Amino acid sequence: MSNRLTDMTWKEFASRTADTVIVPVGSTEQHGPHLPLGTDALIAEHLALDIADRIHGIVAPTLTYGYKSKPLSGGGPLFPGTIDMNGATVVAITHDLLRELIDDGVRSILVLNSHFENEAFIVEAIDLVTRETEGRATIMETNWWDPLPTDVIEKVFPEGGFPGWALEHAAVTETSLMLHYEPGLVHLDRYRPEPDARPLAYARYPVRSSDVPAQGGLASPLGSSAQKGRLIARSCVDAVERYCSTEFQSKDT
Amino acid sequence: MSNRLTDMTWKEFASRTADTVIVPVGSTEQHGPHLPLGTDALIAEHLALDIADRIHGIVAPTLTYGYKSKPLSGGGPLFPGTIDMNGATVVAITHDLLRELIDDGVRSILVLNSHFENEAFIVEAIDLVTRETEGRATIMETNWWDPLPTDVIEKVFPEGGFPGWALEHAAVTETSLMLHYEPGLVHLDRYRPEPDARPLAYARYPVRSSDVPAQGGLASPLGSSAQKGRLIARSCVDAVERYCSTEFQSKDT
Amino acid sequence: MSNRLTDMTWKEFASRTADTVIVPVGSTEQHGPHLPLGTDALIAEHLALDIADRIHGIVAPTLTYGYKSKPLSGGGPLFPGTIDMNGATVVAITHDLLRELIDDGVRSILVLNSHFENEAFIVEAIDLVTRETEGRATIMETNWWDPLPTDVIEKVFPEGGFPGWALEHAAVTETSLMLHYEPGLVHLDRYRPEPDARPLAYARYPVRSSDVPAQGGLASPLGSSAQKGRLIARSCVDAVERYCSTEFQSKDT
Amino acid sequence: MSNRLTDMTWKEFASRTADTVIVPVGSTEQHGPHLPLGTDALIAEHLALDIADRIHGIVAPTLTYGYKSKPLSGGGPLFPGTIDMNGATVVAITHDLLRELIDDGVRSILVLNSHFENEAFIVEAIDLVTRETEGRATIMETNWWDPLPTDVIEKVFPEGGFPGWALEHAAVTETSLMLHYEPGLVHLDRYRPEPDARPLAYARYPVRSSDVPAQGGLASPLGSSAQKGRLIARSCVDAVERYCSTEFQSKDT
Amino acid sequence: MSNRLTDMTWKEFASRTADTVIVPVGSTEQHGPHLPLGTDALIAEHLALDIADRIHGIVAPTLTYGYKSKPLSGGGPLFPGTIDMNGATVVAITHDLLRELIDDGVRSILVLNSHFENEAFIVEAIDLVTRETEGRATIMETNWWDPLPTDVIEKVFPEGGFPGWALEHAAVTETSLMLHYEPGLVHLDRYRPEPDARPLAYARYPVRSSDVPAQGGLASPLGSSAQKGRLIARSCVDAVERYCSTEFQSKDT
Amino acid sequence: MSNRLTDMTWKEFASRTADTVIVPVGSTEQHGPHLPLGTDALIAEHLALDIADRIHGIVAPTLTYGYKSKPLSGGGPLFPGTIDMNGATVVAITHDLLRELIDDGVRSILVLNSHFENEAFIVEAIDLVTRETEGRATIMETNWWDPLPTDVIEKVFPEGGFPGWALEHAAVTETSLMLHYEPGLVHLDRYRPEPDARPLAYARYPVRSSDVPAQGGLASPLGSSAQKGRLIARSCVDAVERYCSTEFQSKDT
Repeated sequence: MSNRLTDMTWKEFASRTADTVIVPVGSTEQHGPHLPLGTDALIAEHLALDIADRIHGIVAPTLTYGYKSKPLSGGGPLFPGTIDMNGATVVAITHDLLRELIDDGVRSILVLNSHFENEAFIVEAIDLVTRETEGRATIMETNWWDPLPTDVIEKVFPEGGFPGWALEHAAVTETSLMLHYEPGLVHLDRYRPEPDARPLAYARYPVRSSDVPAQGGLASPLGSSAQKGRLIARSCVDAVERYCSTEFQSKDT
Repeated sequence: MSNRLTDMTWKEFASRTADTVIVPVGSTEQHGPHLPLGTDALIAEHLALDIADRIHGIVAPTLTYGYKSKPLSGGGPLFPGTIDMNGATVVAITHDLLRELIDDGVRSILVLNSHFENEAFIVEAIDLVTRETEGRATIMETNWWDPLPTDVIEKVFPEGGFPGWALEHAAVTETSLMLHYEPGLVHLDRYRPEPDARPLAYARYPVRSSDVPAQGGLASPLGSSAQKGRLIARSCVDAVERYCSTEFQSKDT
Repeated sequence: MSNRLTDMTWKEFASRTADTVIVPVGSTEQHGPHLPLGTDALIAEHLALDIADRIHGIVAPTLTYGYKSKPLSGGGPLFPGTIDMNGATVVAITHDLLRELIDDGVRSILVLNSHFENEAFIVEAIDLVTRETEGRATIMETNWWDPLPTDVIEKVFPEGGFPGWALEHAAVTETSLMLHYEPGLVHLDRYRPEPDARPLAYARYPVRSSDVPAQGGLASPLGSSAQKGRLIARSCVDAVERYCSTEFQSKDT
Repeated sequence: MSNRLTDMTWKEFASRTADTVIVPVGSTEQHGPHLPLGTDALIAEHLALDIADRIHGIVAPTLTYGYKSKPLSGGGPLFPGTIDMNGATVVAITHDLLRELIDDGVRSILVLNSHFENEAFIVEAIDLVTRETEGRATIMETNWWDPLPTDVIEKVFPEGGFPGWALEHAAVTETSLMLHYEPGLVHLDRYRPEPDARPLAYARYPVRSSDVPAQGGLASPLGSSAQKGRLIARSCVDAVERYCSTEFQSKDT
Repeated sequence: MSNRLTDMTWKEFASRTADTVIVPVGSTEQHGPHLPLGTDALIAEHLALDIADRIHGIVAPTLTYGYKSKPLSGGGPLFPGTIDMNGATVVAITHDLLRELIDDGVRSILVLNSHFENEAFIVEAIDLVTRETEGRATIMETNWWDPLPTDVIEKVFPEGGFPGWALEHAAVTETSLMLHYEPGLVHLDRYRPEPDARPLAYARYPVRSSDVPAQGGLASPLGSSAQKGRLIARSCVDAVERYCSTEFQSKDT
Repeated sequence: MSNRLTDMTWKEFASRTADTVIVPVGSTEQHGPHLPLGTDALIAEHLALDIADRIHGIVAPTLTYGYKSKPLSGGGPLFPGTIDMNGATVVAITHDLLRELIDDGVRSILVLNSHFENEAFIVEAIDLVTRETEGRATIMETNWWDPLPTDVIEKVFPEGGFPGWALEHAAVTETSLMLHYEPGLVHLDRYRPEPDARPLAYARYPVRSSDVPAQGGLASPLGSSAQKGRLIARSCVDAVERYCSTEFQSKDT
């Protein structure tokens, strides 16, 4: 049986409400000249399916539209194809989805986020639902970057070239994950070397076109590989499996 | 090049903003013992891709969570796996998506709905966006049932057995479409004949479990076939192509 | 004692909370050259009073402003005098009203709608209130067209000329109801024959002035009569009385 | 031609958009043992019609559900039949109505309020609409008590017995207005003398049943008469006619 | 130990949840040529601290941004420095604050308002929170003007010159309170005599610059003194102490 | 003249709208056994005043109630005295404040945040206002930790003991800042050594009391000093002055 909720009949789902439901949350956002607009959503969905294999989880349909891409990160409205949801919209859809899962009897939910800007709004929805339902379900939120141990980062950037997460937009980690999961959608040949973006200690509005490198990525994707992507993915799945075991265990016994 | 917005880089999308963008809107809802929870979303997405082939359109990521399944239709909260969004949530996500497309320069948008209950909320979002943007874009909303001509319905129900659209939930038309598009997800063998639901001239809350047949469908899916599904799909695509030609033509010339 | 809640003192109302409260919902919308802007509200209120006579019900003040008139139906913003509420507004007012009735001890509520576009938003309010109050009250929603049996429609359109409900805006059924209930407000002499509107299988925004016949009605009102109006009204009242008997009976015993 | 917008065809309304539109706003609220729940709405509507006669204005359908009755005034949730709208709901409906009138070309609007608690929310709606429409219309808000000159109050309370506006709920002024406008709905014989409420310099929640006299009125209605009602009404109409002449004059020339 | 919640550690606060928490609510609004923009917030905070001294209360951080200054009162958008919150914003922040206090175990809350326009929105928040928490806490709302007895007003305006509260914006009472509490921020020398504003029996939008005297005050502040301010303050504190004793007593025993 | 907007008359403010307005945003949140609930708000306000001295800026009243303290950070609802605003409330108040400043003619605004959890909601408000006002003003958002250069962190944690920002709640940096700005409110003697919190790569709801050390801080405040606080403050002010010079310069010339 598939682990995708989409593919299950209601009776199949009804027989598995004791399993953890995984909600992938991505975005539709420019990812440089070489990655598709669906990069975040695709990564979240693939990772969710891999985690589901490990923990016999159920993968809910991916939230493919995410919170606004920040001006000094993805460039916000500068690039066509970036589709920015308002914060209230992200809260609303996440809220309704979580509430319905809980009302259906689900007690362990993992929200897997692959677009940094989503985080605060997802967590707000989790908080609101937790209050409303008086904590009936355990809800965990994580992503694929925070769980990575230092040694993995060192392997991905063997010569110390890690530019910091703030610049890892359409750069080595995302490109490697896409080469691992969706190689047919990666066009590294279209990338022309240009200077990395400069991380700032502040946000400033309105955005100016010079805030983001012309091609859209913040740091170079050169050096990406499917092997690195597999390493990142496996490392993330390992860690999340551990977190689920810690946090959801009391529910399973 | 794929017509899926998800698969495009931002530059590919930027080169095609004069094309019509198609937004498939579905639901995650019980569809009897034989069809998957994602039935509506899958049908909407497949049809959108077929229409895109005809009109060189772009298919945006499908809205896979829809408005509440009505008690006397899909059974609302009676069946696990039905994930109901509040009306305000459907309006919000549709609004933000349409607004972003328009702000990116898109001027022709087709919203293709496959879950009846979504309609009023989708149309509210279209109305709000149209007012905000002073009618800069032409936005059309339709589905796969309203465009079907009488002769197609007669072919699908050759002996006059059409129970009316109100009962076509998880019944012959949807099952046929799924046999055409996703045969691996159809399990007609799991269906046990039971009496059709009785359409009512009113809605009544709260729902009672006797309101909907026990398996979840409103009318029998027996008599479904992939050929009927293909006929319905082609008939819908033909009609929508015509509507696009009528309504969006001034934009293309 | 009057059945109008407006006319009762609070003590009179307090003595009747076991009765069904009927909430008429109309609109303020153009209805061609011959019917007044209040047509929908007036029809809903008259029918509600007739139903109240039958079931010893209480008629709450009519909601006289309704959801937006659809572009391809009433013409939306094309005609001065149409006053369109946003969807969220219709949900809010219906919600608050239902909630207050339930908090006052009412357990049987009938929402009687006479403007098609209201339906989804009324039902959303009913769903929200039902969840909040954990189903304490039974709430029914209907209108005057869905309950009509086929033989009544055949009597109203004796020569098979029923244009379908989609075109029955300011046409024979509404005009007949107004001739029955408010003959002084009907000016059939002002109507100039013009071609019927063409029903479409889609919605398209923004509206264009050619979408609706110049006078505002969608089909000809010629052939209307007070007798037909009385027939429609009585048939509706008969049916709704039956529905109340079925759905509210457990409350009355 | 009637001055009620409800009774006009859209063409009649279209020919009069230069006239002032009057929006009566009332409430559905307990008014003691002798006045009906619709007292506020009825008074607002009658006064609006009288003002319309004077200034050739148009009376929009009355907003019959108002903001919450305050605990230490009408008694809020203590009395069945009081139907309290949330503040946001009153703002929404007033906003949408004003916006639609302005979009239809109306430039002079008078909001006539007869339920004190409505005021702040009505004015918020006026402020929001004024900002949105950049002040295209002149909107005035008033009621029937603020315009009354001292000599009228002295005539209504000839022996100095005016208890202050805070206690004039279901008391002499409202009862007199109802005796003038709707004598058939006044049941003074049902009133049993009881001590007046005590006005407080603060609000306190939650309400306690002892906060309001048992019958619901705050001060005695004894001494009311239709003549006093007529005096109040005429005095109000006179004043409002003057205000309209001052504030809307630039529009009329 | 300070009575300011801001200054307490969480353990200090935890030991005092049986005390009354006082929430000062002010505004940031023009107050003529001689008083600072923070006048309302400063007065509310000082009075709250004085009341806290009397009743061993806790003073929560002041809400320094209030509801819109009315056009015919403070002049709304006419004067730079007036910072107007929308009604929904005032409701939201007051709601969240009250709810958190109640969830922390507080059962007696006094909301002390010093900006008239705030009142309806504060009270709406109190009502909403009271319903949500089923009346777990007693919440009182008052201000500094309603509690003043007649003899205090006569002492402040010894020769009968009280212009009425509607004109007491940046006039004698507020200026005296500021001379008492914040003399360094009062610049009476900058005031140039100009005619008082004319109170109106209606509100009219949009505001016109002639609606408010050019300097911003509605009546002359001449005749203000610190002694009068002290008298007003003490009189207010005396009264509020009495109200607290009446309304909160059942909680303390 | 004071740089506090609160202390200015409207005329003083009107003469300075070309200056940068600084909006301090804090929180009311438990800060261990030794720091007051107002820590964040006090730090934000002091820093804002120091920055204003440097750039001749205006300090708006501090937003003293912030977004929810995260469960695995400040402990959310575990500690009395933490007052959590909903996300929508933080967006609303920040939005309204920014909008009013812009409408008053201000073109350079600095939002200075001292509570990490506020950031996403502040930035959402800035984005919404920027769209509404079509980028009329330049709005910068920063805090006191992101601008700190590495060498300052090394001086504050001379022996490499920096536990990471995730644990710097009521720890050395905040305690040092408070010793610098508000020494009278710091009670280091009340702190009893306990193990640091363990930073997690995920969020989990509902919070459990074991998630946060019993006293409320996440890492030890021992080693704090007023000198370190002054160093952090000066370093922050230096950096922010530079950012203002870069980002706002075009406005000043």
